[in-house]
Amino acid sequence: MKIIDGKKISEVILEDLGRKVTEIKNSGDKIPHLAAVLVGNNPASETYVNAKVKACEKTGFQSTLKKTEGTIAESDLLGIVRELNDDQDIDGFIVQLPLPSHINEHRIIEAISPAKDVDGFHPVNQGKMVLNLPCLLPATPYGIMMLFENCGIDTSGKHCVVLGRSHIVGTPMSILMGRKTSPGNCTVTLCHSKTKNLEDFCRSADILIAAMGIPEFVTGSMVKEGAVVIDVGINRLPDPSKKSGYRLAGDVKFDEVAPKCSRITPVPGGVGPMTIAALLTNTMKAAGYKDIKI
Amino acid sequence: MKIIDGKKISEVILEDLGRKVTEIKNSGDKIPHLAAVLVGNNPASETYVNAKVKACEKTGFQSTLKKTEGTIAESDLLGIVRELNDDQDIDGFIVQLPLPSHINEHRIIEAISPAKDVDGFHPVNQGKMVLNLPCLLPATPYGIMMLFENCGIDTSGKHCVVLGRSHIVGTPMSILMGRKTSPGNCTVTLCHSKTKNLEDFCRSADILIAAMGIPEFVTGSMVKEGAVVIDVGINRLPDPSKKSGYRLAGDVKFDEVAPKCSRITPVPGGVGPMTIAALLTNTMKAAGYKDIKI
Repeated sequence: MKIIDGKKISEVILEDLGRKVTEIKNSGDKIPHLAAVLVGNNPASETYVNAKVKACEKTGFQSTLKKTEGTIAESDLLGIVRELNDDQDIDGFIVQLPLPSHINEHRIIEAISPAKDVDGFHPVNQGKMVLNLPCLLPATPYGIMMLFENCGIDTSGKHCVVLGRSHIVGTPMSILMGRKTSPGNCTVTLCHSKTKNLEDFCRSADILIAAMGIPEFVTGSMVKEGAVVIDVGINRLPDPSKKSGYRLAGDVKFDEVAPKCSRITPVPGGVGPMTIAALLTNTMKAAGYKDIKI
Repeated sequence: MKIIDGKKISEVILEDLGRKVTEIKNSGDKIPHLAAVLVGNNPASETYVNAKVKACEKTGFQSTLKKTEGTIAESDLLGIVRELNDDQDIDGFIVQLPLPSHINEHRIIEAISPAKDVDGFHPVNQGKMVLNLPCLLPATPYGIMMLFENCGIDTSGKHCVVLGRSHIVGTPMSILMGRKTSPGNCTVTLCHSKTKNLEDFCRSADILIAAMGIPEFVTGSMVKEGAVVIDVGINRLPDPSKKSGYRLAGDVKFDEVAPKCSRITPVPGGVGPMTIAALLTNTMKAAGYKDIKI
């Protein structure tokens, strides 16, 4: 069994991006610029946004953080989105989800210019993804594709089972893995809350991608010997022995599952850092450097 | 075993649409108007387009058929698309596929206004489909969803296996069947040319949707007792005993498979007529009557 070191792979990608930024700077061109909008003070969202800003600093990207009150009116948030769309200096931006319940997330996402939608959530990018056309891919699934690529995992003809059908991870992941691409070309089964015999589907997977957001849901008996397991979950479990009062757990019971796998991503340090690598790669593409490889 | 009579279900839907058109006419409002662009003289395309125009006449829709030479330049075809986009009287239009090889199909499809894209092929409509937002659904998969709806087939929690990942049928079908909708809510497996053990996947299907375009590919031994089988294939097989010189065959070996099924669509008279019912329903929606039910 080999642990897939997402942290390290992400660092290598960020270093590559950093070198590219240096080149850009040296040639006197405009440095790629990512903006993030943070609404309210959800602690998890703050952590994610801060990690993104930090990655920008590390790689030399310009970054802008726009914080607003959680009580902001939808129309005002739409105003911020329009400003960012119109701002020639901003190459790409994200509005960190989830948003407060009085704001229609879809309305915000649809207002983002598809060319600046570096989270890849806009219908235009999702549609182009389905049609296998050039686009900005959803950041987390894109990051997972980068893992397969970087680890040289052969996915073609494999049975990939995706657990969870969220718009952010599960559904786009299932689409990407089934496309006529490399990585890709899997036979894909998408499972969710209505799935019967879920354990049987899991056991038939050559590649199992867990993205339901249920801590330690996937147990040892649910995984085939030699499978590749990708754990997208980041759940906080109470743990009085920790200073923070909690520990991070994935959707996979790591200790049970890991010994059976050929490869597995840990939590933390697996998929999480790859999302940031994908986001910055998207920003580089949005800035016009479309030949950046994954 | 019960044969799903797509022709009859389609006729009932077209009658409903016809009554709606009469209502619209009686109230003095503008009658829905569908245009079709036919490039060249591919006989299958001519047949399809003629069937669509005929369905318009039958239901009282206005229709316009624009025929062009197969040698038309891409820029001229784009010009026709732009004219149709701008024509206030046209509610929806299709450009019949396939197009001659010197024309980039994606460029044509992306030029169609998403609001008039009644074939549902535009990235905006495909993306909204993924995100479960209101949109114009791809006509053939939409027609199949109408079949499930009209036959009262319970799809929730069922294992749906889709054979073929074309942009027109297989891929959108797999997305629709997996969404949190009714019909929908299936565990979906998408199979294609790279799939290994394809027969095993077929045998595990509660609902099998064959859309590879390989005549009589699905044989009796590949289908589970009691399965629902939807045959999307329309293939011409040479048959000297027919006046035309050919007979139509689906992707399913009907005589072998039918006795094992709980329900099955025939070819012809199954999915084909439903595509037209879906197309005209989309046109009604594009004309602003969004509450039309499937």
